Amino acid sequence: MAKEAAHTLDAFHRGRFWLVQPRQTGHRAGADALILAAAVPSAFSGRLADFGAGAGGAALAVAARCPGAEVQLVEQSPEMADFARQTLEHPKNAGLAARASLLVADVGLAGAAREKAGLAARSFDFVIMNPPFNGPADRSSPDALRRQAHVMDDGLFAAWLKSAAAVLRPRGSVAIIARPPAIAPILAAMNGRFGAAQIVPVHARADAAAIRVVIRARLGSRAALSMMPPLVLHEASGNAFSARAEAIFAGEAALFGD
Amino acid sequence: MAKEAAHTLDAFHRGRFWLVQPRQTGHRAGADALILAAAVPSAFSGRLADFGAGAGGAALAVAARCPGAEVQLVEQSPEMADFARQTLEHPKNAGLAARASLLVADVGLAGAAREKAGLAARSFDFVIMNPPFNGPADRSSPDALRRQAHVMDDGLFAAWLKSAAAVLRPRGSVAIIARPPAIAPILAAMNGRFGAAQIVPVHARADAAAIRVVIRARLGSRAALSMMPPLVLHEASGNAFSARAEAIFAGEAALFGD
Repeated sequence: MAKEAAHTLDAFHRGRFWLVQPRQTGHRAGADALILAAAVPSAFSGRLADFGAGAGGAALAVAARCPGAEVQLVEQSPEMADFARQTLEHPKNAGLAARASLLVADVGLAGAAREKAGLAARSFDFVIMNPPFNGPADRSSPDALRRQAHVMDDGLFAAWLKSAAAVLRPRGSVAIIARPPAIAPILAAMNGRFGAAQIVPVHARADAAAIRVVIRARLGSRAALSMMPPLVLHEASGNAFSARAEAIFAGEAALFGD
Repeated sequence: MAKEAAHTLDAFHRGRFWLVQPRQTGHRAGADALILAAAVPSAFSGRLADFGAGAGGAALAVAARCPGAEVQLVEQSPEMADFARQTLEHPKNAGLAARASLLVADVGLAGAAREKAGLAARSFDFVIMNPPFNGPADRSSPDALRRQAHVMDDGLFAAWLKSAAAVLRPRGSVAIIARPPAIAPILAAMNGRFGAAQIVPVHARADAAAIRVVIRARLGSRAALSMMPPLVLHEASGNAFSARAEAIFAGEAALFGD
């Protein structure tokens, strides 16, 4: 379908990587993917899986900032996976292609089915995920691809985190970006599997409620949860991004300061 | 024992209420109690219970700021309840005494035992709680009274919130101040009972991890959780309190802006 699908080619991280994305339908990468990618320490070295990778924005942002990272995009939707494939094959991403691969698979699978789909146990050092985050009660997106990306219930958080725990090596890390109501189901799903959780609330404005949270945690750790200083995207007035948000969107800063 | 116990008489809210407190042992009221009290809207009117009231700091702060509030201090420790009694009887608090009472009871009781202890079902409009918050793994306080106030496991959060749900009238509110690791057990205990949860992280400095969280929620609500802007206690440099913290400590501002 790639030939027919209307798409755009968009530059990220000041042109250090590019995404082939659906023009109007499907899930277009944006701030969420870049903020999620920033949860990976700049010195990270090893294999990283991007669960629900879409066109590959978060995974390529990690590959662009972290020279020691080898990233695997994992995407279930054949349509979105096709955009991801075009992204990885695009000449503008040639410098990253050797450290990036694509797996078409459902990360919600369990046990032998997950292994058979290509997600081997204990094979990654980091998993990042930007799960479909709008609850069934929210206003639905107008088209089917968007709907598939945006509808997720608490049980799916549990399934995705269970898969992350399975594919991670001991002491591996997971990072997830979600809407604030997901805090409870995410922490419940992490209980007994992950520890040392760190939460960064993301606010559009300093005086308004958070629009997202990023939660990072470590497999098998028993360390206590920390609530970190928030990321505020915009200055108090006007539409300009804050200096910290600009640095994160440019791939020049890490969200947790590491 | 009151005659023998060394105590202090301390002014709060610019002298609008006073606390009789143990001089060295036991749990002395401070910033936590005042921040918790600030979670009650200034226009609140009705009956409020302060679970684990200690000498009464949080409850009297509510009574001083909210003229429509009738507060009941609930404290299990006979020693601390004696300080609470002296606080309520002190002439400096005469203006608040008509709207404040003391119940010596264990808020962790359930069912008929809780009713028998004086905590009637559906009898309050608001419950605030500052539970003993240091986990067993933390460094213990040096004396027994402090130890009793500071050691609490996840099961006790559940017990206290279950009691809060029982004594609240429909659509009543609960507010709790705790350390950030308590977020998971608190949200788990609220699940199915409380909704519309709002979290305010409390940071000593803007660039450091939070030292406390305040979580407010409404009985029987199905509304989603919100992550609110943090309260930052100190300016970037020096030991001065921020303007917002000063206003909260003075009883001149509410934590959630209502």
